[in-house]
Amino acid sequence: MVKLYGDERLDYLLADESMKIIQSPTAFAFSLDAVLLAHFASIPIKRGTILDLCTGNAVIPLLLSKRSNAKITGVEIQERIYQMAERSITLNNLHDQLSVIHGDLKEMLPVLGHSSFDVVTCNPPYFRSPKATEHNENEYLTIARHEVYCTLEDVVKACKLHVRPGGKVAMVHRPGRLVDIIALFRQERIEPKRIQFVYPKHGKEANMLLVEGIRDGKPDIKILPPLYIYNDDGSYTEEARSIIYG
Amino acid sequence: MVKLYGDERLDYLLADESMKIIQSPTAFAFSLDAVLLAHFASIPIKRGTILDLCTGNAVIPLLLSKRSNAKITGVEIQERIYQMAERSITLNNLHDQLSVIHGDLKEMLPVLGHSSFDVVTCNPPYFRSPKATEHNENEYLTIARHEVYCTLEDVVKACKLHVRPGGKVAMVHRPGRLVDIIALFRQERIEPKRIQFVYPKHGKEANMLLVEGIRDGKPDIKILPPLYIYNDDGSYTEEARSIIYG
Repeated sequence: MVKLYGDERLDYLLADESMKIIQSPTAFAFSLDAVLLAHFASIPIKRGTILDLCTGNAVIPLLLSKRSNAKITGVEIQERIYQMAERSITLNNLHDQLSVIHGDLKEMLPVLGHSSFDVVTCNPPYFRSPKATEHNENEYLTIARHEVYCTLEDVVKACKLHVRPGGKVAMVHRPGRLVDIIALFRQERIEPKRIQFVYPKHGKEANMLLVEGIRDGKPDIKILPPLYIYNDDGSYTEEARSIIYG
Repeated sequence: MVKLYGDERLDYLLADESMKIIQSPTAFAFSLDAVLLAHFASIPIKRGTILDLCTGNAVIPLLLSKRSNAKITGVEIQERIYQMAERSITLNNLHDQLSVIHGDLKEMLPVLGHSSFDVVTCNPPYFRSPKATEHNENEYLTIARHEVYCTLEDVVKACKLHVRPGGKVAMVHRPGRLVDIIALFRQERIEPKRIQFVYPKHGKEANMLLVEGIRDGKPDIKILPPLYIYNDDGSYTEEARSIIYG
């Protein structure tokens, strides 16, 4: 039996209702971005190890567990949200495969060692840290969305530190940071190999970026077909529907 | 009266038949890439200066002259092709607005000075230079398509050298070089600001990349809506048709 606190609620994570996740409108609720990243990332299926940084309520580890037997570790800096992740894993009976660490991704070397994961995934905070006065009044959401505790460079450095040579790093971010991401990946010798841009609908600019790199990989990148989320009438496209509802 | 040599032919450059260009199947014939770049590049309309590196038969200057009164200078390293460009400019009576220089883009500083153009465009050789034995047997085409006389880095350095601070650099290339282009633009302080990926048709990977940067610009890039060239039945899409036929 798992307890819910405050405004927490239990949501189905997938259309087949096989998996539940604890969410809270004021602390952490996953977004489409996490679902798309979990679908986009190339992961080992039968065995292996996956690390998910900025894991939040463990939405990405939970989704990945549906298509992989790899051991999956999440790292979350906010204790309240880490606790939600723990309880979601309990709820789904997945402690054999999934674990979450409460900690700072910049300080995981003593805990996780270096170069020990086949794949690292991350849905990091998107926004450059605003001035203290401009912070979202809700501290949980501010930390999840703004570069308060980690910059993009911190995130990419942590990905590099923990992924094995030849291993993969997959990230979702805003297209406006494409140049920073590519520059930082190169700086850390994670060669970008696959990018998919996500467009809200036909004729609009991209509003999401999925990128996968290989540590010490050879230069050459593929730009996948665009992913459109909505039809002109506002309904999900067939492709988005199949990713979101499985 | 303009002479044609060898296998040269006279093609219409635009659907309205207002402009002609000298082409040769064995020396130089423009491709869709040049047409798309000429359409994509942001250029001054009433006055100003534009430089087109790797200009070939001056296809990009000719196309740009249809929508701008700016003075346009082309640079072409191959004398035979430079001569074609010269004659095409004569043919269209555009010597007041367009000029072509026969020379090496790496050696244009004494000729063009630095930081003197509002916009620099370039459709460079796409392929890393193969071993001498692997060269296309046709030397003209080899030089136009392979990095024989200039690398991508040479090209980006030349763009930076000749564009004014705040001026724009627009380039077409293969998506596989996206990471190199972004890294080199950043290295030369040309901040990438707009990218459009070109897809042969729906569901395929991108096969062309249009990128525009601003010298000393602020980081933040827009990913434009995808451009599809063909419908599923092999006909041009409406958008491609309107770009190609004007």
